Amino acid sequence: DLSGTRSSLSILRSLHSVTVRLSTMQGLAPSSKLSLTVVVVGLLLGMAGAAHGLTRVVSSSPDEPCMNMTLYYHDILYNGNNTANATTAAATKPTALATTYWKNSTYFGALMVFNDPMTVGKALPLAGEEPAARAQGFYFYDKQESLTSWFGFSIVFNSTAHKGTLNLVGADLMGDATRDFSVVGGTGDFFMARGVTTIRTDAIEGLYYFRLQMDIKLYECYL
Amino acid sequence: DLSGTRSSLSILRSLHSVTVRLSTMQGLAPSSKLSLTVVVVGLLLGMAGAAHGLTRVVSSSPDEPCMNMTLYYHDILYNGNNTANATTAAATKPTALATTYWKNSTYFGALMVFNDPMTVGKALPLAGEEPAARAQGFYFYDKQESLTSWFGFSIVFNSTAHKGTLNLVGADLMGDATRDFSVVGGTGDFFMARGVTTIRTDAIEGLYYFRLQMDIKLYECYL
Amino acid sequence: DLSGTRSSLSILRSLHSVTVRLSTMQGLAPSSKLSLTVVVVGLLLGMAGAAHGLTRVVSSSPDEPCMNMTLYYHDILYNGNNTANATTAAATKPTALATTYWKNSTYFGALMVFNDPMTVGKALPLAGEEPAARAQGFYFYDKQESLTSWFGFSIVFNSTAHKGTLNLVGADLMGDATRDFSVVGGTGDFFMARGVTTIRTDAIEGLYYFRLQMDIKLYECYL
Repeated sequence: DLSGTRSSLSILRSLHSVTVRLSTMQGLAPSSKLSLTVVVVGLLLGMAGAAHGLTRVVSSSPDEPCMNMTLYYHDILYNGNNTANATTAAATKPTALATTYWKNSTYFGALMVFNDPMTVGKALPLAGEEPAARAQGFYFYDKQESLTSWFGFSIVFNSTAHKGTLNLVGADLMGDATRDFSVVGGTGDFFMARGVTTIRTDAIEGLYYFRLQMDIKLYECYL
Repeated sequence: DLSGTRSSLSILRSLHSVTVRLSTMQGLAPSSKLSLTVVVVGLLLGMAGAAHGLTRVVSSSPDEPCMNMTLYYHDILYNGNNTANATTAAATKPTALATTYWKNSTYFGALMVFNDPMTVGKALPLAGEEPAARAQGFYFYDKQESLTSWFGFSIVFNSTAHKGTLNLVGADLMGDATRDFSVVGGTGDFFMARGVTTIRTDAIEGLYYFRLQMDIKLYECYL
Repeated sequence: DLSGTRSSLSILRSLHSVTVRLSTMQGLAPSSKLSLTVVVVGLLLGMAGAAHGLTRVVSSSPDEPCMNMTLYYHDILYNGNNTANATTAAATKPTALATTYWKNSTYFGALMVFNDPMTVGKALPLAGEEPAARAQGFYFYDKQESLTSWFGFSIVFNSTAHKGTLNLVGADLMGDATRDFSVVGGTGDFFMARGVTTIRTDAIEGLYYFRLQMDIKLYECYL
């Protein structure tokens, strides 16, 4: 593919001049220099991207995501009576393994399907108000002795601020103060995203409601 | 592959001079030296790839995937009588949440397991004919008010054209004309692939058959 | 972090000279130039990480992972009596599709949830001994005619050697001698990892125990 080759050569040439330019800049604060570096990486990776105003950015440090946001995840379990409010329901019952350790069960094998609102603040959306996003997916409990679960879901954005999805999987080790999911992909405004989402249990109200704080940090972005 | 070997040698030569240059730098703190070493290792890692004729390619624009193909996904639901033809079956029933909004149910919580043929054209494979690939995985319905679902599956290729798998997850927002899944990994011919797959509902025939057009676009490839 | 900035500048300076050298090379075939470009990008990616002692490493060859390890996965299915030992339980029963081909069933649609020990050697952990890791997740059987399954799980490390998780999905084509899962993300010590895990069935003992050898190879690491 000759056109590919030619554009590679062009990048090498522009890399040369970008590099010279950067190394002769004098007035930048240290932090600016750092982020310029990251942007240059994006420039290199992607030629056509520039034409669309999109640049691939790959962060190198866990402390410097290329995008981050915090959202609260509200899980309202169906209890048999709350059909108007419930956003999660059990698709399977706990297995017999779940009841051998705890009187109250560890729910081993119980699979929950959800379509949960996600909000910027801690409060549930007001009636008729669209949440910032919706989390659509499943979790199931997967430990005999205590409560842990495993999640697979999409965060679906459909607002003026964001359109697109982030796809996540990971273990919710509920006994830990914080735990991490992987952001394994993204679409729309989050095209090809990757990252890590740190989870904290923010509230538990009885058996039928819990709220998780999700700190979503992306380390691969197209900006 | 001689051309691969030659380019390895060239890289070795340029690596040599980089290394000399790096090892004569005076102003670096010990930790910086360590990471420079790792960077050189990174250079080395780049070589063997060339020797095997494999080069990592990362696209920068949504419009220029490094690989793409279109396949049709045929979902033939088990209806109690079609055991010879069915390729999908319900592993769980819809939850009570599913029946509160729609008379016909939105199937909230119904989990489907599938081993579906994927074809290049729209027609189902003829009897005895191997399809281009098989999609093996699951989806479940996850909305109370309308039909949406969530997919996790592998596209399994086992033909003369391709051997290997692509692994996908994502939300099927069935009310949208197109929606996107993430390609989160690949194996065999699709080693370490990432990308986005755009889905269109191409046909629905009653309750027991639907066909999706899947435009698979990879943006990270080893070619 | 000033030392990080300084090392970034140093790399930029050395990058400058590398670039000059590369752009004056004459003897390379076009394909070789492309891979050189990729290597230079790798250099740039290494920078910000230097400030934290972490460097992003991307392997270019399937034969040279940036990290690898072999672990054995022990699946002990609940049989109704072994509550003290069982680590897996069926959350759903096989569908009617599963019994149409094999007398012994192919379990089509049977969903298993597991919290399985993973060990460095082939033996199960001794009583009271912590395994090297635990695999927490699910698999389900997804073929009418023979046994294949699909996995989604986390390998959870919580030892002095490793803390963190690896997240995997993929098809277990049980009829093949080896098959590959995708490592789609990582957290903690495995921050942002990607890779491929090759699976071999190492032992099957009746209906209630099997052991898989898992060769975990990462091609994107932060080291």
